[in-house]
Amino acid sequence: MEPILLYDTTLRDGTQGEKITFSGDDKIKIAKKLDELGIHYIEGGWPGSNVKDKEFFKSAKNIVFKNSRLTAFGSTHRYGISAQEDKNLNAIIECGAPVATIFGKTWDLHVEKILRIRLEDNLDMIRESVAYLKTSHLEEVHYDAEHFFDGFKENKDYALQTLSAAVTAGVDAIGLCDTNGGSLPHEVESIVKEVIAYFDKPEAEQKRKKPIRFGIHTHNDANLAVANSIAAVRAGAVIVQGTINGYGERCGNADLTSIIPILKLKMKHPCISDENLKKLRMASLFVSETANMTPLSSRPFVGKSAFAHKGGIHVNAIMKESRSYEHMDPTLVGNRQRVLVSDMSGKSNIEYKAKELGISLDDNGLDTEKILSRIKRLEKEGYQFDVADGTFQIMMEKLANQFKPLFDLDSFRVTIEKNKDQPCYSHATIKISVDDEVQGITAAEGSGPVSALDNALRKALNKVYPNVLDPVHLVDFKVRVLDGRDGTAARVRVLIESRDETSIWSTIGVSEDVIEASWQALADSFQHKLARLEKDKSIK
Amino acid sequence: MEPILLYDTTLRDGTQGEKITFSGDDKIKIAKKLDELGIHYIEGGWPGSNVKDKEFFKSAKNIVFKNSRLTAFGSTHRYGISAQEDKNLNAIIECGAPVATIFGKTWDLHVEKILRIRLEDNLDMIRESVAYLKTSHLEEVHYDAEHFFDGFKENKDYALQTLSAAVTAGVDAIGLCDTNGGSLPHEVESIVKEVIAYFDKPEAEQKRKKPIRFGIHTHNDANLAVANSIAAVRAGAVIVQGTINGYGERCGNADLTSIIPILKLKMKHPCISDENLKKLRMASLFVSETANMTPLSSRPFVGKSAFAHKGGIHVNAIMKESRSYEHMDPTLVGNRQRVLVSDMSGKSNIEYKAKELGISLDDNGLDTEKILSRIKRLEKEGYQFDVADGTFQIMMEKLANQFKPLFDLDSFRVTIEKNKDQPCYSHATIKISVDDEVQGITAAEGSGPVSALDNALRKALNKVYPNVLDPVHLVDFKVRVLDGRDGTAARVRVLIESRDETSIWSTIGVSEDVIEASWQALADSFQHKLARLEKDKSIK
Repeated sequence: MEPILLYDTTLRDGTQGEKITFSGDDKIKIAKKLDELGIHYIEGGWPGSNVKDKEFFKSAKNIVFKNSRLTAFGSTHRYGISAQEDKNLNAIIECGAPVATIFGKTWDLHVEKILRIRLEDNLDMIRESVAYLKTSHLEEVHYDAEHFFDGFKENKDYALQTLSAAVTAGVDAIGLCDTNGGSLPHEVESIVKEVIAYFDKPEAEQKRKKPIRFGIHTHNDANLAVANSIAAVRAGAVIVQGTINGYGERCGNADLTSIIPILKLKMKHPCISDENLKKLRMASLFVSETANMTPLSSRPFVGKSAFAHKGGIHVNAIMKESRSYEHMDPTLVGNRQRVLVSDMSGKSNIEYKAKELGISLDDNGLDTEKILSRIKRLEKEGYQFDVADGTFQIMMEKLANQFKPLFDLDSFRVTIEKNKDQPCYSHATIKISVDDEVQGITAAEGSGPVSALDNALRKALNKVYPNVLDPVHLVDFKVRVLDGRDGTAARVRVLIESRDETSIWSTIGVSEDVIEASWQALADSFQHKLARLEKDKSIK
Repeated sequence: MEPILLYDTTLRDGTQGEKITFSGDDKIKIAKKLDELGIHYIEGGWPGSNVKDKEFFKSAKNIVFKNSRLTAFGSTHRYGISAQEDKNLNAIIECGAPVATIFGKTWDLHVEKILRIRLEDNLDMIRESVAYLKTSHLEEVHYDAEHFFDGFKENKDYALQTLSAAVTAGVDAIGLCDTNGGSLPHEVESIVKEVIAYFDKPEAEQKRKKPIRFGIHTHNDANLAVANSIAAVRAGAVIVQGTINGYGERCGNADLTSIIPILKLKMKHPCISDENLKKLRMASLFVSETANMTPLSSRPFVGKSAFAHKGGIHVNAIMKESRSYEHMDPTLVGNRQRVLVSDMSGKSNIEYKAKELGISLDDNGLDTEKILSRIKRLEKEGYQFDVADGTFQIMMEKLANQFKPLFDLDSFRVTIEKNKDQPCYSHATIKISVDDEVQGITAAEGSGPVSALDNALRKALNKVYPNVLDPVHLVDFKVRVLDGRDGTAARVRVLIESRDETSIWSTIGVSEDVIEASWQALADSFQHKLARLEKDKSIK
């Protein structure tokens, strides 16, 4: 089957989603993740439209992508000026991305009623914009035909003329966009077929300097974005645009986490490697985590419930024959079968993890059943061990009686004061013991209560373990409210990611009190670091 | 176009969803709602499987349905006994529902590997079960062919034999089920076509006593449940099974809230009336409310974001011509157009919003450019106005010199104390002024510092505005860290959602200090509530 190129627009069209915003830093992290996944094109943003995107492309210059080509987005030049004078087009050329994608109008309604210009002028704008980009150093120029399907249905001739304008100017690829998301799969399939046939005709061939690759860009307004994408592929499209988790404006864009496994596993189109496909679930989680969106557990292929079985009949059947109630092997996309009534699936996990952490279960008469039931209870309370390796290790050590606390809390007090229009002022005092010996009280300020507590704890520990914690940075600090109880009294989960020169570890805390939860995660993080150091010493 | 019958299984297959449970009372309420919506069949449950479902049918006997026929679900009789002896079939007959739907095995894999019986025995079970139900007082008997598409792909002859068994026994309708949800639309379309053609052949016609209606039942494991349903309709299916909001096992069932408007508005198949279609959004909300599931704002057709516009270009266009960025008129399904304000907005968004909030821009010499640049600056700092209507209104009022603060902060102090293994203890003191008059200091405890501050502020405001804030509940409290600066010193954004008896509003705060950010959002929330009250008073 024809190989398909994947075109991700999470960082551009995805951010049009109602609740989606990414910092510049978030965008860089996601781009790296998409590259690891083997996505062919990463649309990084619209450098001519806002400062944040411009800065993204600046930072992205320092990244060496293994699999992906970075793409800068923009529109055809403004009416009334030349392409060369257009700031938006020049921003694309200057941003350093090897690929440019510009969109233009297909639908006569938009040209006449929204832009309020003549139909011919729009054709000129498309032709000249593409031609100008083609004279620059760019490796590829793509043209996105906005509202292609709506335009085609209302004025087919004009819609085809707009594509011809891009083709004549030497465009490399054309994206057919169902911008409003209202098209049906059979319409998309037949229109894409007709367009490709049109540009395969001898008279059209003369206009183009080389073969054109056609792509598809769909929206989920009719719950058909994935179906429309694969309908276009059946009709001959070879580039598929979409976003991770289908994030995007209104009802979202086509969800690449569904499209990739369908193309690869069900339709047998080469797109990403088997190995990379296994990273799909983690990529989905990474993007939802970065967007601070709760991962949808019913999300096809990658959701937590996607291969979860509840009914007794089903569970009995899948134990005999897993494909009896599963349309595919979940491990191919990095997911797993979950049986909601059986503990069987968990036992081997625990054994694997214990081995990984160097905890011998047999020597300690440790029961995997006991560990499993403790994990289940804690996860029910809101802990999540798959993202908190540091806390998981401490819990395992405690259960195996191998836990050696390197400090104990006696007490802390954090105070936050605010006067009128002044900013808040936070300070903390803390008293800890090491080897049952109380250390004097220490105090510290901070920007915010957790920062003050962090500083006070470091100061206290520094007396006993001098300079050991200096290289430890808290690189991420995430707070999530867990239940729908009255707002400020709800249970929260704090996840802290820490780093030193050699490694990264995560710890977690859960409480009704955000400071208490933060304390748990903070204490686990420092305990983890100190314990690793002790271990290294004892080896030497 | 052929009229389509809608078959809802929210109350049966929908409850297989991981987080879905309905009480008997809930089920009655939902059944009434579905009847109002004009759904043709309501599958109420499995009376032979559990007591709750049995009781549901008992209570349902007292309901007079205007549009719907109640359907009882079950399986073919057990192997080794006769249909007459089967408790499950007798429970269906006795429950009082006018329609019975039983499912049976299509896929030889299931017959031989799971049931572990001979292929012929399964055919007998189907034939005899249908025949037995047909001898009872039931008005209609439907047969659901489980795993139909998987079975057809692996052993077409046998799959057709199972249907023939039901047909020979006089079945009224056959549901073709994609039980594992892994089929693709073009497969579904071609298989359904083939099946219908098969039963239209003269030799097959002899077997059946009357025309058979074919139906489709799909699952969303490949994100294609809606597409597969409409593909089957294109192939000749006239009954569509699904659930409200697509609730169901794993990735859910086909979502009727998408299928209904597609069938009616886009494919022009009569199914429910125009008037009933307008109830679709409320039906969706009612079911999610009853299931205690957060409504998905990106849900096609009925979600809060389904017709929400963020980008400035889009907003400018929809103000000129709404179909320019909307695939249909949202009011047809009881939804509405929404305009969001963000750093991607243009002038048009601001004008639209100002009008909505009743703020006259001209009267105040207010420059949309000025508002826009202020929004962009604040959004760069981390504010997000598209999700914080309350704070947005306050900011607009301030810029328009129409802001009247209903209280001012003098100072607050929050203290969090923790002793050894005791939980944290938080308390707050606060001093506010109203109309420049300092109110005495108030103190309160809380579960966590924000909760303590919330309680203290309420106590203080209660002196001036007695009982006004009692109905205000904070329904959501979200914290996210905004940048990658050292963990606990990073900037955080706090988003609070508040509710009273009549409305919901959101407010936002951004600071390096989580308490400061929470304070901003909290203060804005109470200001918003009090201002609304003042406004109501002045109108009266």
